[in-house]
Parts: sequence; structure tokens; C-alpha cells
Amino acid sequence: MSKQSARFPVVDAQVSPTGRMEVLSRTEAARLSSQGQGGLRETFRNCALAVLNCGNPLDDGKELLARYPDFDIGIIQRSRGIKLDIRNAPASAFVDGQMIRGIQEHLFAVLRDVVYANGDTGAAPGRFDLGSSDGITDAVFHILRNAGIVQPVIQPSVAVCWGGHSISREEYDYTKRVGYEMGLRGLDICTGCGPGAMKGPMKGATIGHAKQRFGKPRYLGFTEPGIIAAESPNPIVNDLVILPDVEKRLEAFVRAGHGFVVFPGGVGTAEEILYVLGILLHPANSAQPFPLVFTGPKSAEEYFRRIDSFIGETLGDEARSRYRIIIDDPAAVAREIHGGIGRVRAFRKEQRDAYYFNWLLRIEHEFQQPFRPTHTNMRRLKLHRSEPKHLLAADLRRAFSGVVAGNVKNEGIREIEQHGPFEIHGDPEIMGPMDALLASFVAQGRMKLPGTAYNPCYRVVPRAREAAPSA
Amino acid sequence: MSKQSARFPVVDAQVSPTGRMEVLSRTEAARLSSQGQGGLRETFRNCALAVLNCGNPLDDGKELLARYPDFDIGIIQRSRGIKLDIRNAPASAFVDGQMIRGIQEHLFAVLRDVVYANGDTGAAPGRFDLGSSDGITDAVFHILRNAGIVQPVIQPSVAVCWGGHSISREEYDYTKRVGYEMGLRGLDICTGCGPGAMKGPMKGATIGHAKQRFGKPRYLGFTEPGIIAAESPNPIVNDLVILPDVEKRLEAFVRAGHGFVVFPGGVGTAEEILYVLGILLHPANSAQPFPLVFTGPKSAEEYFRRIDSFIGETLGDEARSRYRIIIDDPAAVAREIHGGIGRVRAFRKEQRDAYYFNWLLRIEHEFQQPFRPTHTNMRRLKLHRSEPKHLLAADLRRAFSGVVAGNVKNEGIREIEQHGPFEIHGDPEIMGPMDALLASFVAQGRMKLPGTAYNPCYRVVPRAREAAPSA
Amino acid sequence: MSKQSARFPVVDAQVSPTGRMEVLSRTEAARLSSQGQGGLRETFRNCALAVLNCGNPLDDGKELLARYPDFDIGIIQRSRGIKLDIRNAPASAFVDGQMIRGIQEHLFAVLRDVVYANGDTGAAPGRFDLGSSDGITDAVFHILRNAGIVQPVIQPSVAVCWGGHSISREEYDYTKRVGYEMGLRGLDICTGCGPGAMKGPMKGATIGHAKQRFGKPRYLGFTEPGIIAAESPNPIVNDLVILPDVEKRLEAFVRAGHGFVVFPGGVGTAEEILYVLGILLHPANSAQPFPLVFTGPKSAEEYFRRIDSFIGETLGDEARSRYRIIIDDPAAVAREIHGGIGRVRAFRKEQRDAYYFNWLLRIEHEFQQPFRPTHTNMRRLKLHRSEPKHLLAADLRRAFSGVVAGNVKNEGIREIEQHGPFEIHGDPEIMGPMDALLASFVAQGRMKLPGTAYNPCYRVVPRAREAAPSA
Amino acid sequence: MSKQSARFPVVDAQVSPTGRMEVLSRTEAARLSSQGQGGLRETFRNCALAVLNCGNPLDDGKELLARYPDFDIGIIQRSRGIKLDIRNAPASAFVDGQMIRGIQEHLFAVLRDVVYANGDTGAAPGRFDLGSSDGITDAVFHILRNAGIVQPVIQPSVAVCWGGHSISREEYDYTKRVGYEMGLRGLDICTGCGPGAMKGPMKGATIGHAKQRFGKPRYLGFTEPGIIAAESPNPIVNDLVILPDVEKRLEAFVRAGHGFVVFPGGVGTAEEILYVLGILLHPANSAQPFPLVFTGPKSAEEYFRRIDSFIGETLGDEARSRYRIIIDDPAAVAREIHGGIGRVRAFRKEQRDAYYFNWLLRIEHEFQQPFRPTHTNMRRLKLHRSEPKHLLAADLRRAFSGVVAGNVKNEGIREIEQHGPFEIHGDPEIMGPMDALLASFVAQGRMKLPGTAYNPCYRVVPRAREAAPSA
Repeated sequence: MSKQSARFPVVDAQVSPTGRMEVLSRTEAARLSSQGQGGLRETFRNCALAVLNCGNPLDDGKELLARYPDFDIGIIQRSRGIKLDIRNAPASAFVDGQMIRGIQEHLFAVLRDVVYANGDTGAAPGRFDLGSSDGITDAVFHILRNAGIVQPVIQPSVAVCWGGHSISREEYDYTKRVGYEMGLRGLDICTGCGPGAMKGPMKGATIGHAKQRFGKPRYLGFTEPGIIAAESPNPIVNDLVILPDVEKRLEAFVRAGHGFVVFPGGVGTAEEILYVLGILLHPANSAQPFPLVFTGPKSAEEYFRRIDSFIGETLGDEARSRYRIIIDDPAAVAREIHGGIGRVRAFRKEQRDAYYFNWLLRIEHEFQQPFRPTHTNMRRLKLHRSEPKHLLAADLRRAFSGVVAGNVKNEGIREIEQHGPFEIHGDPEIMGPMDALLASFVAQGRMKLPGTAYNPCYRVVPRAREAAPSA
Repeated sequence: MSKQSARFPVVDAQVSPTGRMEVLSRTEAARLSSQGQGGLRETFRNCALAVLNCGNPLDDGKELLARYPDFDIGIIQRSRGIKLDIRNAPASAFVDGQMIRGIQEHLFAVLRDVVYANGDTGAAPGRFDLGSSDGITDAVFHILRNAGIVQPVIQPSVAVCWGGHSISREEYDYTKRVGYEMGLRGLDICTGCGPGAMKGPMKGATIGHAKQRFGKPRYLGFTEPGIIAAESPNPIVNDLVILPDVEKRLEAFVRAGHGFVVFPGGVGTAEEILYVLGILLHPANSAQPFPLVFTGPKSAEEYFRRIDSFIGETLGDEARSRYRIIIDDPAAVAREIHGGIGRVRAFRKEQRDAYYFNWLLRIEHEFQQPFRPTHTNMRRLKLHRSEPKHLLAADLRRAFSGVVAGNVKNEGIREIEQHGPFEIHGDPEIMGPMDALLASFVAQGRMKLPGTAYNPCYRVVPRAREAAPSA
Repeated sequence: MSKQSARFPVVDAQVSPTGRMEVLSRTEAARLSSQGQGGLRETFRNCALAVLNCGNPLDDGKELLARYPDFDIGIIQRSRGIKLDIRNAPASAFVDGQMIRGIQEHLFAVLRDVVYANGDTGAAPGRFDLGSSDGITDAVFHILRNAGIVQPVIQPSVAVCWGGHSISREEYDYTKRVGYEMGLRGLDICTGCGPGAMKGPMKGATIGHAKQRFGKPRYLGFTEPGIIAAESPNPIVNDLVILPDVEKRLEAFVRAGHGFVVFPGGVGTAEEILYVLGILLHPANSAQPFPLVFTGPKSAEEYFRRIDSFIGETLGDEARSRYRIIIDDPAAVAREIHGGIGRVRAFRKEQRDAYYFNWLLRIEHEFQQPFRPTHTNMRRLKLHRSEPKHLLAADLRRAFSGVVAGNVKNEGIREIEQHGPFEIHGDPEIMGPMDALLASFVAQGRMKLPGTAYNPCYRVVPRAREAAPSA
Repeated sequence: MSKQSARFPVVDAQVSPTGRMEVLSRTEAARLSSQGQGGLRETFRNCALAVLNCGNPLDDGKELLARYPDFDIGIIQRSRGIKLDIRNAPASAFVDGQMIRGIQEHLFAVLRDVVYANGDTGAAPGRFDLGSSDGITDAVFHILRNAGIVQPVIQPSVAVCWGGHSISREEYDYTKRVGYEMGLRGLDICTGCGPGAMKGPMKGATIGHAKQRFGKPRYLGFTEPGIIAAESPNPIVNDLVILPDVEKRLEAFVRAGHGFVVFPGGVGTAEEILYVLGILLHPANSAQPFPLVFTGPKSAEEYFRRIDSFIGETLGDEARSRYRIIIDDPAAVAREIHGGIGRVRAFRKEQRDAYYFNWLLRIEHEFQQPFRPTHTNMRRLKLHRSEPKHLLAADLRRAFSGVVAGNVKNEGIREIEQHGPFEIHGDPEIMGPMDALLASFVAQGRMKLPGTAYNPCYRVVPRAREAAPSA
């Protein structure tokens, strides 16, 4: 039933599940409906709304809740299983009154992960030892397994695609062409599941897979409650997972993926690059094959050239040896990833490590812990040349993470509104290139949705002029 | 194995079948390899080459054979079934040395239909009574059934899309958007299976189907040996049928389709419009629901306005009442077709006619017989206002068919090269609008691939100034 | 709807199809309903009744028609495909008013084969050259292919089981145990699809397949219009084929099967043994691996010992070398067949002959032609020691075939009622053992259903005392 | 590889998994291999051996371990998932060196349930509140859900079959006939998954399902570590679940089943009858439809007559109204269960309770707690007429449970060997009928495997002569 609304039309609907987790225990159903202690109602409601808002350009997390203040979702028990009772949902999730089935599946993926990851991982602290690195990895594994992502027997095939959710038409078309070439070669696509560089490769791959008659192509989307509102999963994603936080989401990418393609983006993309380089620079990972390609059309060459310089200046040539930059050649990208995944396969086979989960990759506890981008935490980052390279990469990553939060995340935006821009301190040899890089992003229009003026949420402070700490 | 060639790289390969007709009797295998009496070798070879040439812009049938003079295809018997031994095939059919699976399927569809339709329908005249209207319809039905196209139980869902294979980028993108909206609504797509308006709707629908998780979407392609070289099936087509000739192909469209969308094209598109109007104007078909929409982006409005005028001037308002023109509104097109198919369903149910084959539609023998566009036949067309409307439509269709042949078909092109342009005679009230329409096509650049100058293959001769007949 | 009847309760029903051939052309539907020239109504009706009578002990073909005089079956055209309208069908085909689905499938298999084999093979003489050996083999192949029996890719696995439809409980249980052991080894079962030795192996294999989780086990049943009434297919059969006559049915067995098990039976079983030995004795087949096992429980040892002696006395030791007798050891039988099929596989691979159809096996035209067991034809058999062994085997087979006809087939029974017992002439060295063998069958109670006295339908006439020919 | 052994031949093998839980986390793999704190090695090993011993008559749990002292099972990590490394397994689990696939699946079901139910339910006490009735029910639900047993959408169809694992041939054949009739009606079978009455219905249903072409029939087997050795799952079971203990197994039966058939058995069968009556007599369950049929061939009439009398004398006529006794009529049993399940469906639909799990059934905490049949616990049972009927039923159940343990379970047998027979105290009005019933079981040969003399493990002590309590 469609309702007329001032600006944002809404629809009510009852939807039935489509996948595995259609049966809830009475306890689970109760927790999903409860707001109190152990209750999951708010997380479930917010993620569900984000999923339903798919297709609507929206770059600001807190705007979504304001647009649909009367949105609600409840659980109805029926003899054949549960149904979801949805009120005042964005009308764009429906075609002629019927919810798009891909979105319907996403709602139940949200349900599954909110119950499992919060119920078991989060609330039941006895189950996983989240205080240890191994315990966190175990939690990530269990969440992926429960979502049906880790599958045995299957050959390595997951190409993770990173890049901006708000890119130019030319760059978007390029991501489609790369996806198409990867689809033709039987690669599955895994992204952060929003629009832009996270959608294009999937659309392209869909056509490639159709031509190759791949019966069950996988379009994996990994997201988390803090980012989902700004980057609604696109409905092509047929395996959506909501990880509990940014760090577990990143760990899921690097452990479940086999090849990695980075398209142009903004500071969030730079953050992902630093995260993965930080891990690859750890001495324990030096032997790991890890195909990593930065690519874009001609117009994106500048973006990657800048990042490449920044990496060279801050992390050095070893870091630069872990990736390849390919400009304007989709088939070459697909061949590079396809070949690299062949080497991953051989390595895992030799090491008897699982194809479906990269257990051997060492991820320091440092990289696994949520980073809350408060003013204090941002000020405490150690951006010094004397740090070991993988730790320096970790703190650079955090710095960029804070900038992303200040740009698009509810919490971060509110923080900046209250206390002004973050201050980031460090060696001039690092802060200089960092400031230059961020400035180049602004110049390239990569900090915000096109059309809006970018209002910086950070201030770079070279160590010499360091300000006195404040609470 | 890829070979280096002067201009057109080629590949050798052996491919295994993927579908049903993988087992040949010894007699069938012998006929496919034989060139003599009852032999099918040449037809098989030519259609196979056309299928393998997919993706290469080529608007002229005879050029294909010239490009790949050493192409050959043979049949190898193995314990597990047959294989195809392919020499000097266009390299574009392969990705990193592997044949694209969709193309591989098409090769075996060609095999199936060449064996069945020529072996049983064609060569074995005792099987079908091709001299009667019912016999021809029976033959079309059997060919479609043998190809797995007519399927019981399934609800009506086939949207036939007609339109040019050589259209502008804007028009092409529009066909994708219409396909997407139809895909979202669960419609299957059926086209003549070449590029342009025959490919766009399938690409769009593929994305729509993926979002809706349709497990077995159907992308039907109907072609025939005379047209396949110029309009290579695109590999998204997952049900390819090679009908024996133009007329059986057209009959297959109108009997197997449920809704009909006409995109902009050239004279071939006009021919298809006249064919279907000729049938719908038959008094026996007046009660048949038959959703028919002409649509395109804003830039195509002129094209359809011209056709609409021409139909009004020659066939009258009854003809105009059988279609609807929708400009620049993909969702409206999809809703119109979806709703219309609902009426088709109700009508068939009430009449107890099959969902999968429109037995009730009356198609006069006239419309079923191959029209050979010789100079004599073209001169004999009866383009008079006094003719019953459905017969006039039939002869107008033939006139346009001759022009298409003169433009793109081997035989037609050779005919024109030898004897000069066709002469088309008729009442000035008809010949005037016809000449004007064709002239508007030329003016809109719709007679040929963009970039080449159009050299008309016909001459309109109003009856008053009729020339003396020549042999 | 169940109706009360004097002795044989009947039910009316409308059933929908379940398999592939659910769409009929208008011509086909008309022929199935027509009794005249080219009409298939009677054949269809009689075979359908036989299929529906499954599970009822009945050894006499003509009795069936007498039991259900009001049975009728018609075709209803519906939008979603055809339905069958069934009147006064045997109630045993239904469970609580619902037709058993296996039987329902059989009805549509009958429909498919009656339309195809009679419509195309039979009535359309231009299609197959039934006057040549190759043409008949081609017809058998096409019928099997149309029925979905010949399938590529699949490994050889078909164990053909022959034997009596009316055997003792002990022998029946033994056939189940052999079927179970074959099922555990992944073998599919093919029989003449009646009760007794044709049902037991399928029941046993069903349990074996279930334990091994074989997803798509095949239970092939080959029958023909003349025998189906007396040997109703049991519903486990999931691939039923109605061949046009006895000889094509036998050819289907030997060309589609890979291993052969003969259980105890009566004279029909002896006929099958002679048929297969006649083929194997042809010099062209001497290199063919052809696993052939005669087996039964201890109580059946006598039966096979007698047959073995008879073969030795008439066809010699070469014939005896083509089979192995295994008494009371189901696992040994299964291992022997499984191993033999391995050799068949290797031979076909080496020879590049198809796994799914034994094209290389030479079957003389002699063996392919229907034998009408009239008094004249029976008298003309050449049962002389001087005949080549494979031709002698052919005529011995015919002699036994006549006896089977006189025992259980409509036509044969009526012939005997009219003209008295058949006279079979030949050399005393052959007629002696033959008479002795038939006498031993009578003594073992293997000529008729238990409980009824056997009334011989033949008279053996050694050549010396040969009677004057009569018209 | 098969090895020759004195009496019990053994085989070594490596087997790959077949189902869902093929991916273990590193923690899970470590626990399965560990014997210490939190280690699951022994439970896994013992259950695995029991599964592999299927098909061997063995009525005594402790004998199994003695027969295969060198049996071992380990986990091997491979790139494509885990494998099991099995040493000295019973040769009967293999056919020609290949493990029967059904048994292979069972091994992985054991793995799944040992990890899940012990890892999560058992060892992690924070997850389920096993101290409350709701918590235990939740645990049962989660174990069944994790095993893929509770499935939405599916209509109610589960017929639970109880009865002896050691019954006469006639009774066994009868259970097959009942299974066949239930299979024809589309019912799935759920049993305790051993031989006898737990195997027969599955074999029969397999044939019924095959005739009806049911694509995915379910053969559920519920067992527990204490009973599995004596009642090896038969390989037809395609959904095996190892519940943690007797009580959760019984709760799984009554919550997951829809109809209940009790075949003849011994004292274990009587225990199951008392368990279910105890639940049904609870006032909260009085409105629940719960189809319950006691059935057997003519020879079993006496067995059920005795039980019926005993129930009448101890629990009264209300208890007797909850079941129906049907003698020698398999089709009537199937119809009764089929009809009853229809009423269950209607009730659940009306109450909005799940089809797949009977949440509404009240099971008192009393019935959920493991009963350890020690001499003390047996002596403390309250077998008085003044008890509420459902509590009296519970204690009668426990009394019989103790007798079963003393007969067949490791622990119980050792207890009896050490301390002599159990003493069961109570009102003479109850102890009299109980003693008589047990005596009738002995007389009918229903206390032990045929051929062995029964040595009673209990002594009935009417209250008047009650002995002094001992620690």
C-alpha cells in the first residue's frame, strides 16, 4: 500500500523470508522486539531502513532517519515461519507495490546478522574472546560462516572491489567494464555494497556472468551498522553481511577475499588502502601472495599517482611493491586479478590453509580494535617516521578513518558540530604529504557529493607546533 | 589456441555441448558433415560462423564469409557424446582462450535447429504439410517445441522487443532502461537477437532480474539463416532458435510472444510493424488482446510520429488503435506491457488457448510464404487503396522487406548490384506517404550504419507514371 | 471420485502432466482422439489402461479389457497445457483418491511414445527406413532419445534385469537382494517393467540408492503395446518407454544396457537368453565385452542348469562362454556386473562408441523384424544343426517367442483357441532338448501363474515325422 | 584399505564431508581433537564408531568399544575444507572399499552436533539457561535448527515411529507396510534411527516415496550419545541429530513430530508411551491435537492389550482416550495419522504456532531433566495413586527408563553388575500391574535379543514391604 507523503513517499508491507534464517526461537524474536537490556530493536530498525532506502542518493547518515521518522519494522510469528511487518518504508524499495526481492533478502540478512552477531558475539561475551586477536578472528569467521559466506570445495574466486560511492559517470562506467571482464573470467565480486564503485563492478559482472551462464554467481556485500545508512546495499548483492563494526568488516574483506581491486574514491578509499598495506607490511605476511590493483580510467590517473607518491614518501618502496597501478585497461585488470588468485590458490594449497578464509594472514590486535574518532583519540595518533612501518600505516589509516567519520558518519558529524575540526599531529615529513594528499582530494572534488562545498573536518598539525592536550 | 592473422585474429578449439541435443544419430551426424543431397554442411557452417562473430560490428552479410575464409566446423563422436571441432573461428568469441559459454550454447542451438528444421521440416516433406496454413503453423510449433521454447505451466511473460540493430547511444541506453523496468516486473525478453534494440532490453532485464532474484529468466532470440550473419546473436540470449526463413521467424514472434515493444529502428522495424498490423487487421483477430507499444527516448519521437502518420494515411484509424506510442517513460512501457499481458492471460484462459503458443491468432497463408525480393516480385506488389486493409498491409510489408534485403542481405545486395534498384509501383495516395517515410528514414540516418552514405536500393513509382515491365 | 462396482472398483480423474511432452500440437491432439486412418486412440487407450492396472495380478492380456469395459481416456486442452480426462480407471492406481504420481508419469510416457513412435516412426514412413537394419536401429535410437533415455556425459551404469514376472517369494526376495547390492554400487536398473523379477531389483536398488544418496537413480522400463497389459509397469519405473514392438524393445535393451542379469523366469526368459546369445554369436560381435550373468537362489539352480545344458547341446560351448551362472550370492552378482561394465566403458572409449547407445553391436536384420507367431510361421522355423549358430539361435528364439505369445498375448491366445497348438519342426537333436527344456519348465511350474494348470500351446515335431504343411 | 582381523574386519579411510558444516573454525577443530577440559574427542570418537557399526546386530553398548579397540578418528585440514581420517573402522560401513555415503553423512552429522551441542549448549553455560524449562526447550530448538531440521514453509508431515529395535520378522515386515502406506501419503518418517521398528518404516516409506516421486523425502533420526552404540543409525536416515541426552531427544520427538505411531517393542517402547502420555495428561495440553496410534500385526495384539490395561489401571481412561489401537491394517494407520496431522495443521494455524516446532506443548521441567538411573534415584520414585496423573506418568516413565538402562546402556549395566537389581517401590495398585506388565514382556520375549535368556535388572517392591532407605 503506497501512501502520499510530502516529499518522501512511503509504503506499508508484510514480507516473507526467502533464505535460511526464517525460524527464530522465541527468545530471539523477543530480543528483536525489545529496546531494553539485550534488546536489538534499534539496531535492527536502523539497518532495515538503510536497506530499504537503496537507490536514493544520500550521503549523510543522519538525514535518513529524519526523512522516515515513522518507519517501523516488527516481527509476526506465523505457522510457516516469521514475517516482517513494515510501516512507512521508502517507496523506492517497491515496484508496483511489490518489494524488490533482492531488498527483501537483505532485510532477512539484517535480521540474521543482528540476531547472531549481537546476540551471540556481542551480548554473550562468553562465546568469543574478543580481547584476543585470535578471538576476534574467530568471531569474524563465525559471522561469515553463519551467513553462508565461507563455503568449502569452491575454488578461490572472490575479487574485492573498493572505491568511492560517489564517483563520476566516467569512473562509474569504468568500474562496470572491469566488473564485466572479471565476470567473463568467472570471478565473484565482493564490495562494501553501496553505490558507485561498489555497484558498478557488480552490474558489469552480472552481464559477464550471464554470457558465461554462471549459475550461482556471488555478489558479496560487507557492511556495518555505522556505514549502512550512507551506503545502502544495492539489490544485486546476493550475500549481504552486516559485520558488527568497521574493523571486523575490514577483516572480513581481507580474509574472505582473494584478489583486491581499488577504484578511485576519496579519503575512505585511501583508508582502505592504508589498512591493507599496514597488514601486508607486517613481516609475518611477507610471503603471502595478495593480488592488489589500483585502477581507473585516464581521468583517475592523477588520483592514484598522488596516493602512490604519498605511500612512497611515508611507507617506502616495500609498500609500493605490494600493488600494481593499471590505467584504463579493464581486461588487463581482470587478467592480473585472475592470475593473482591462481597464485593465492597454489599458496593456500601448499600451506593447507583454507580457500574460503585466509587464516594465515597475521592481523595485529591493533588493526582489529574499533577506533573511535574522538578529538582525543585523533590527537593521540603516532604519525612518526620512527614507528615500524606497519604500525605507522595503522595510525595513518586511523587518521583517514577519522576524516571519513567526520565527513559521513552520524557520530563523527555530531562530534565535529560540537567540538570543531579534529587536530591531527605528527612529523612534518608525514604531515606534509598527508595534508597535500587531502588537499588534492578536495581539489579533485573527492571529499563530498558533487555540487556541495567541502567543509574540512580536520586540521593537520605538524609536531613542532603541537597544541596542548585538552580533555 | 590463438593465431595471428592480418586483420581478423582467429582461434581453433574443440567444444563440448551444454544442452539437450548432445546425442546425434549416425544419420544426423553424417548429414551435418555432408555437402551433397540432403547435406546440411553449408547451412550449419554459415550459421555457426555468424554465432561466433558476435560482438563485432558488421552490417553486411557477405563480408563475414570474406573475413573468415578458412573457418570450418566439424563433428567429433566421443563416448560421452559429440564435440565440435572448430578451426579459424573469430577470436572475439573467446576469453583468454576459452569460448564464452553463451556462444558455445548458441553453436549447439544452431546444430539442433539445422538438424531438426532442415532434416525433418525441410528435407522430409512428408512430415509437415507446408502447403497449408495450418501445416506451416504446425511446423513453427514443432521447431519451437523441439527447441524447448514452448513450455507448459509457465505464466505468460514474453515481451517481444523489435527495433533497429544500429541505433544511437541514447536510444540504446533507453532500450536498456525499458528492459530493466520489464525485468523488475518479471517479464522475459524475446528479440531478433542481434545488437542495438535487440541487445539493450536483455542487458537491462538482466540487471532487473538479478535484483529480483529470478532464477531462470529467459532471453529468447529468434533468427534465421539469412539474417543471422548481419545480426549475430548476443550471448545473453539463452534460448536461441534458428527458424528456417523470415516468415516462420515472424510467425514465431507473434505466436510465442505475449506483449510487443517496438523501439526505433529503420525500415526493417517498419516491416515488422506492418507485418503485425496486417495480422491484427484480419477480422478474425479483432477480439484478440495484443499489447503493442512503440517507444523511444525524446529523440525518437519524430521516427514514430512519421510511422504513425504513414499508418493513418494508408491503413486508417483502426490500425492506429492497435498500438500505443509512449515517449521517454520506461516504467510506463513496462506497466503497459505487464498489464496487457494480464489481459492476454485472461483471454487465453477463457478461450482455453495455450499460454505458450497463440493458436487462435489467424495468420493468412499470404503472410506465411517466403517473399523473394526479386525485381519481378517487387514490381508485382498490389499497393492499392482498394485492397482489403490486411492484404494491403501484407504487400506494404513485402515492399519494406525488399528494401531491407537490398540493404543488408547477401542475396538482395547481389540482386541490386546486378539489376539496379527495385521498382515499387502503386497508388499515389500510398506511394507518396511511402516515399516520404523512406525519405525520413534516410534523413534520420536510419537506413545504414552511421557514417556511411546511404545508397537507395529502391525507386518508388506511382501508378500513373508506371513504367513498362521488364524481365 | 471412486465408484462402487461389482468386482473391480473404478475411479474418474483428471490428471496433469509431470514431464516434458506436455504440449501437443493441434494435429497430435487430433490424432490421439481419432480412431480412423492415422488415429492413435485405441493404442493409447489400451496402453493407458495397462499402466493404470499396475499392482493387480493378471496374467492374461485379454482379461484386462474385459474387466474395465467402460474405461476411457481423453485429452483436454488448457491454457497451461493438456490434461487427461480419465473415466472408470482401476481404483488401485489411486491412494485416497489421488493417482499415484509414478503412474501419472507413466500415462504421459505412453502419450509421448504413442505420438512419437507411431506418429513419426510408424505412420510417417519417409522418416525412418524401416526396411534396412540401420534404419531400424536409427528408429530405436530416436525413440529412446525422444524419451530422454540416451543421455550424454553419464558413465555406463545400466544393469538390465530379465526374468519371470511370476516367480516364487524366495526368488522374488533374491531379486531384491541383487538389486540392493547393485544399487549400493551405483548401478541403475532397467527391466521389462512388470512384476516379479522386473520389480524386485528396482525395489532393492531403491534402498541401496537411498543409502548411497544417489540423487537421480534411474529405473528404466522398456515395454511394448502387446505385452504391457500382462506386465503392467510398476510405479518405481521412472523412465518408461513404450517401444513399437517386441523386436525394437529387445534391441533397446541390448543397445541401451551395459550389463545383463537374468533371473529365473519361464519360457519368456529363455527367449530373451536366446535372443542375446544369437546376437553375441555373430562373428562381428565376438570382441564386444557384454557382462551377462544368470542368477537365482539355491532353488533356481535347476532352472539355470537345464538352460545351460540346452544351450550346450544346441549352440555349443562358445555360447556357454558368453555368460556366467552365479547361485545365491547377490554381492558377487553385483561385483561381476559392476566389473563387466568397467570393461564395457573401456571398450567404448577405445572404440569411440557412445556410452549411451551401443552402435557397434551388430544386430542382423533377421533379429529386428517382428515375428508374427502364426501357425504357418511357427512351422517354417529352421531348427537344424547345420544352420550357422547365430541364425539357429534366432529361430530358437522365435520358437520360444511363439510359445510366450500362445501363453500370454491376446493375439496368440486367440490363434491357439482357433487353430489348436502350434507345431514346431526340426532336427531331433534340437527338438529333443527343446521338448525336454519346455517340459522341465512345466514341471517347475514356470509356464503359468501358480495355481492354474498349464495347457500347452505348442507341439514339438521332430523332422523325421514332419507333417504335411497346411494353409 | 581393508585389513584382515581375527573376528571383526576393519578398514582405514579418509572421507570428505557432504553437507553444510564442512568448515570448522580453528578453535572447533582443536576441541574435537582434545581430550582435556572442553575437549570433545571421546564423545566424537564413540558416536562416530557407533555410526560406522551400522548393520551389525549388537545389543550391548559396551561390547562395541571392545570389538574395535584400535578405532580412531581425526580431523585433517585441507584447502577445500576438512577431511576425516579414520582408522580401523568396521568393514561393514564400506562397499568394495568405499564408505556408504549415508554413513559418511552421519559422521559429519555427529561432528556437527558434537561441536554445536557440546561446544555451545553444553560447555558455554551462558548461552542457554538449562536451569529453566524454557531454556531447555530453547536449546532443543537451537540444536534442531542448527541441524537443518526445523524448516519453515513446509507443511506438517513428520510421522514419528517408535517401537523395538529387536522385533520379530513378522512385526518388522508390518512396520515396512505401514511405512509404505505413509510414504504413499507423503508423510516423512522420524525414528530413533536404529534397526527393527526404527528401520522398517523408513524402508517401506522409501518405496512409497519413490512411487510418488517425492523429491526430498525426509528420514529423520534422533539419537543421543548413550543409546547410539546399541542402536546404530541405519543409513536411510538422511537427517541425523545427536541430542545431548535422553530427555532432550524425547522433547525433540514430541516438538518436531506431527503424528506418532508406536509399534511393538519392549520396555523402552513402554517408556516412550508413558513419556508422551505424561505430557498429554498435563491440563495445559488438553486441547492439543496429537495423533497417536499403537499398531502391529495380529501377533502384537497381546502386547498392546497388556499396555492398554496397564494404562487404564494406573493412569485411567483420560489417558486411554489419547491414543488409538489399530491391529493389522497399515492403510488405516496411515490414514489415521494423515488425518490427524491435518488437525494438527489447523490447530497450529489457528494458534499461530509454528508447523516446524510445537512451542505450545507444555513440558514440565520434571520431564526435561536427565534421569540418572542409580539405585538411589530408582528407589525414590513416587509411584502412588494420589499423585497427579501427569506426574505419576513421569515417574512410571522413569521406572521403565531405569529398566531400559539396566538392560542395554553401559552405565546401567555396570551399575547392576556392581549393586544388583534396582528396587522399585510404590502402591500395590500400581506395582502389581507394573510387575505383571514387565512379566508379560519377558514372557513375550521382548526384554532382550531373541535367543538370550533375560536376566531381570529390577525388583518390584510394593509399598507395604518397603525397605529402609540406603545412601
